[in-house]
Amino acid sequence: MQNSKIIDLANGVLKGDRRSLAKAITLIESSLEKDEKDAIELLNLVSSSPQKSIRVGISGVPGAGKSTFIESFGLYAINQGKKIAVLAVDPSSPLTGGSILGDKTRMQELSMHEKAFIRPSPSSGTLGGVARKTRETILLCEAAGYELIIIETVGVGQSEVAVSEMTDFFILMLIAGGGDELQGIKKGIVEIADLILINKADGTNEPLANVSKNEYKNALHYLSPKYDFWRPEVITVSALYKTGIDLVWETILKFINLSGLHLTENRKQQNEKWLWDTVQSRIFSELQKLKENNPIVQSVEKDHSNGNATLRESVSRILQIFKETNFL
Amino acid sequence: MQNSKIIDLANGVLKGDRRSLAKAITLIESSLEKDEKDAIELLNLVSSSPQKSIRVGISGVPGAGKSTFIESFGLYAINQGKKIAVLAVDPSSPLTGGSILGDKTRMQELSMHEKAFIRPSPSSGTLGGVARKTRETILLCEAAGYELIIIETVGVGQSEVAVSEMTDFFILMLIAGGGDELQGIKKGIVEIADLILINKADGTNEPLANVSKNEYKNALHYLSPKYDFWRPEVITVSALYKTGIDLVWETILKFINLSGLHLTENRKQQNEKWLWDTVQSRIFSELQKLKENNPIVQSVEKDHSNGNATLRESVSRILQIFKETNFL
Repeated sequence: MQNSKIIDLANGVLKGDRRSLAKAITLIESSLEKDEKDAIELLNLVSSSPQKSIRVGISGVPGAGKSTFIESFGLYAINQGKKIAVLAVDPSSPLTGGSILGDKTRMQELSMHEKAFIRPSPSSGTLGGVARKTRETILLCEAAGYELIIIETVGVGQSEVAVSEMTDFFILMLIAGGGDELQGIKKGIVEIADLILINKADGTNEPLANVSKNEYKNALHYLSPKYDFWRPEVITVSALYKTGIDLVWETILKFINLSGLHLTENRKQQNEKWLWDTVQSRIFSELQKLKENNPIVQSVEKDHSNGNATLRESVSRILQIFKETNFL
Repeated sequence: MQNSKIIDLANGVLKGDRRSLAKAITLIESSLEKDEKDAIELLNLVSSSPQKSIRVGISGVPGAGKSTFIESFGLYAINQGKKIAVLAVDPSSPLTGGSILGDKTRMQELSMHEKAFIRPSPSSGTLGGVARKTRETILLCEAAGYELIIIETVGVGQSEVAVSEMTDFFILMLIAGGGDELQGIKKGIVEIADLILINKADGTNEPLANVSKNEYKNALHYLSPKYDFWRPEVITVSALYKTGIDLVWETILKFINLSGLHLTENRKQQNEKWLWDTVQSRIFSELQKLKENNPIVQSVEKDHSNGNATLRESVSRILQIFKETNFL
């Protein structure tokens, strides 16, 4: 028997009602066990709707101008007829509720637009947990009819990889620096970018931005491309003066166009990876609980650490205990 | 009821009989399921003996002179009254049976010495598998009375980390190059080294080796030390002309001496990590089997990849199947 409250909520989401969407996201973000069943039911109800959307990830060091860019870019996309959602993956600020909350004031026009929906990062602790909730939020937003989903993340460690694994197109935003820009960012992040934006290409800063652009273009030649149909591009923009925004939009459309069937295949692979990553992390967290709370496991561990039990025997004992645990 | 053949083998190992040791290692290296029980019993029987040993890891690019150094260093240690075992972790050459086989000809004097035992890398495929077998071989060698265990690895990827996780002291061997030596090796490997050796410091090459030594000494200042009681040292040696070998030996003894209780603690932590890594890899390989062979899992995966099933539901189904699998 289905829960009529959840059916109502799902219908609200599918009709594109903003309050229903916000409430649905709050439900899937909940860590309360009693909400888990409702969340599963809700996701089941909305995920049957066909989706067509563009998922764009964007990262960059603090101060690069991501919020200003998203404001300009989002408004541009709305003018192109799209409904847009802006989400964030920011596991670094669990207490403040994510950086986008502060950014909302910097996205003033966009945040008040009826065709835009802005939601801060889930405030859970681990990157894995935040990423899962954001992925589910993407599905809810798409069910609510949002066609361009922008997922912002700060330039720290592994969060860019997590975001690139849930998006179709990944933008890295930089600003022109003192000539050795490539030193400042991790090579791995450049490698996952489909587009590099050099922001603040305005006023006296414009020549410097152009120099940077050429340096990155040269540098990209040394990286092996992610796709055979796409060479990462470098574009200068001024998020503040709204120049170059149209070129970013066209570049994304060009990418989607060239990618053809690859886009579907890419999402399938992302889903598959997501599934197995989640299975593994569920098992890991069960093992972690055993390690922390199970006295028999702890004594097996101690015996092995002290050299009083062999590896094979200790592993078998832990696997046995794990199997007997009710972890579903 | 215990297997008398295995008890005999264990006794042979404990008496330091070389043929028994070689046979015991062959048993633990076996991938045959029928040998698994015997291997566990053997390890149980020998691991009750108290061990005191020094475990030294050594890595370096091919051509750095590792074999020549091990020959000189091993003979020096034998003169100091030690029985020594030389093992290898080389997952890159499963077919040749490990690089040390070839090296044995380059360790001619050592390989014929009654107080030395040389064994090539296990010829299994994955690094994890090779590392496990090498760890068990260390235990067997120690049970057989070998007091200095040298574990060699080639300078490729993750094998150095695996070796550093099974040793007390880690040596990185380099040769003097054209001035920018630091470029050639991965920073991570320098970080795990307790001692850097610049080999081939002989003849016209000696001044260059000294320059390299100073460059590395300077470079090490920028790395945060692994231990609070030890700063990695840099020593020039000539493995061929046997100069500097005594200093290497003294440096290791100094390290052991300064480390105090830390050495025991370090081995405990290594054992603990080894245990959980093995538990995880056992579970991973079970999941991998399900993914490859179980039609129900494959249909769950397909439904999720195509967006026809939600994550939470798909994860639950896979965990359920996993739990019902007999993976012990």
